[in-house]
Amino acid sequence: MSLLVIGTVAFDAIETPFGKTDKIVGGAATFISLAASYFTKKINLVSVVGDDFPTDAIDMLKKRGVNTAGLQIKEGEKTFFWSGRYHNDMNSRDTLDTQLNVLATFDPEIPQEYQDCSFLMLGNLAPAVQHQVLDRLHTRPKLVVLDTMNFWMDIALPELTSLLKRVDVLTINDEEARQLSKEYSLVKAAQKILAMGPKYLIIKKGEHGALLFHGNEVFFAPALPLEEVFDPTGAGDTFAGGFVAHLAKTKDYSFENMKSAIILGSAMASFCVEKFGTQRLTEINMEEIKQRVQSFVSLVNFEIELV
Amino acid sequence: MSLLVIGTVAFDAIETPFGKTDKIVGGAATFISLAASYFTKKINLVSVVGDDFPTDAIDMLKKRGVNTAGLQIKEGEKTFFWSGRYHNDMNSRDTLDTQLNVLATFDPEIPQEYQDCSFLMLGNLAPAVQHQVLDRLHTRPKLVVLDTMNFWMDIALPELTSLLKRVDVLTINDEEARQLSKEYSLVKAAQKILAMGPKYLIIKKGEHGALLFHGNEVFFAPALPLEEVFDPTGAGDTFAGGFVAHLAKTKDYSFENMKSAIILGSAMASFCVEKFGTQRLTEINMEEIKQRVQSFVSLVNFEIELV
Repeated sequence: MSLLVIGTVAFDAIETPFGKTDKIVGGAATFISLAASYFTKKINLVSVVGDDFPTDAIDMLKKRGVNTAGLQIKEGEKTFFWSGRYHNDMNSRDTLDTQLNVLATFDPEIPQEYQDCSFLMLGNLAPAVQHQVLDRLHTRPKLVVLDTMNFWMDIALPELTSLLKRVDVLTINDEEARQLSKEYSLVKAAQKILAMGPKYLIIKKGEHGALLFHGNEVFFAPALPLEEVFDPTGAGDTFAGGFVAHLAKTKDYSFENMKSAIILGSAMASFCVEKFGTQRLTEINMEEIKQRVQSFVSLVNFEIELV
Repeated sequence: MSLLVIGTVAFDAIETPFGKTDKIVGGAATFISLAASYFTKKINLVSVVGDDFPTDAIDMLKKRGVNTAGLQIKEGEKTFFWSGRYHNDMNSRDTLDTQLNVLATFDPEIPQEYQDCSFLMLGNLAPAVQHQVLDRLHTRPKLVVLDTMNFWMDIALPELTSLLKRVDVLTINDEEARQLSKEYSLVKAAQKILAMGPKYLIIKKGEHGALLFHGNEVFFAPALPLEEVFDPTGAGDTFAGGFVAHLAKTKDYSFENMKSAIILGSAMASFCVEKFGTQRLTEINMEEIKQRVQSFVSLVNFEIELV
């Protein structure tokens, strides 16, 4: 079953306590697609870049099985650029620069060959653009996963609220869940957000793992305790990519299978943060992923018998 | 196998966003003993109170199977008193008042009948007093668990450092682990702290669960996502009490069994925070504990097969 991914393909410049980069390839759709490419080869990308975007980066995506027919390349324009600096705790960051460039006028085009997609991953973008993608698909995908952020809650809440009624799974972080629900308790926040539309809610807590809520059920996936988080950029997108790709690969979007999908998403995210940008996501292999998943099993597995 | 518990038996006055209490019964050893009492009836308490401490609170401990032969009652003196106010996030608190009273001159007496203890839980107290308890036991217990806090790292680091060489398990929270090790990464912090003496390290992360480190192994127990944390006072002590009591009951202090013990400690702590002070710990039953443990199993259990 094919997976349609929409989101940014971008340049990032990153500063962490461990070092800094010049412009490197980033963007939500890049991380999502790369993570997904380890589980499915039917990945259809919708995004936009300028003519400054390197051909070899697009070739790298193609090589990983990503269909770039829906990636618009705007002549004479520049690619979206974000620059940020992480604090010592790696959980907070300052945005140093944002240049929307091609993103300011992004009009997502869905190639005809993408129309049959079963799974749709709406990476973080303006809710209006995410609406457009849904509007332009002739049939609704079997599963629609939405990622968004506090920025859109601040400036586009009505569009975001109506979008929530059109999606199956929402992924946000803990602070965003609190902002959206006006509840501090994540359990109460989840109840309110599920009542807004999505059937499943994933609350990402960074180094503290992720929670999956559905009805009255809840599942928790830890983050792997790492010696060093080198660069958290793209970890949330990588998580989402691994998550949705496992569902697409297994054609099973039950709550039980979503648990496995979240563990795989967490495993992929744990690779992502080990080096700058997308680097780790282009060099790992299935054997490493299996070992990483085994680390998650060891981390939380216990036997208990109460007499 | 008997469990020796030393720590404060105290009065607390607590303010949370949900309400406030007058003086109620609290103290590390109280929470530890009550939590432990659900798993073993051989609990020997060493502590000190003033003659203002209510007899019915001591009777309540006795009724739960706690031996209070080692609880000194100082005539004409007052019980240790702590008062604190929790912030909205329940993870941080301000101390409003501390009156050491009997604790200022606490000289722990070990009744002869306590000498054969196999398990020792050193609840949070001055490291010098914790040293004294170890000094006064004729034979070293099979397992010594130490709880401490940042306060002692600030004012009694040399005594604490030498104490670390005498214990098997150390329980501290994440900020304390960072302070003690001068490492931000908890994995690196754990390696440094294990090199200081304890064979096992439990890092408590409050609502984010707890990590158990031993050599190169790590286990993670989540905290149960709760609708409301009513009063976190004593949660860490309750956790420690459930943990050590399960080891004492099963006479098995392997890494594998410590995993179960941590889940039980987490389950007991999840009850503790549901009401003010020790109230929940005096009214639950084994059936509720089993159901709570089952919630932990459901929360983290997953099946995954990668092909």
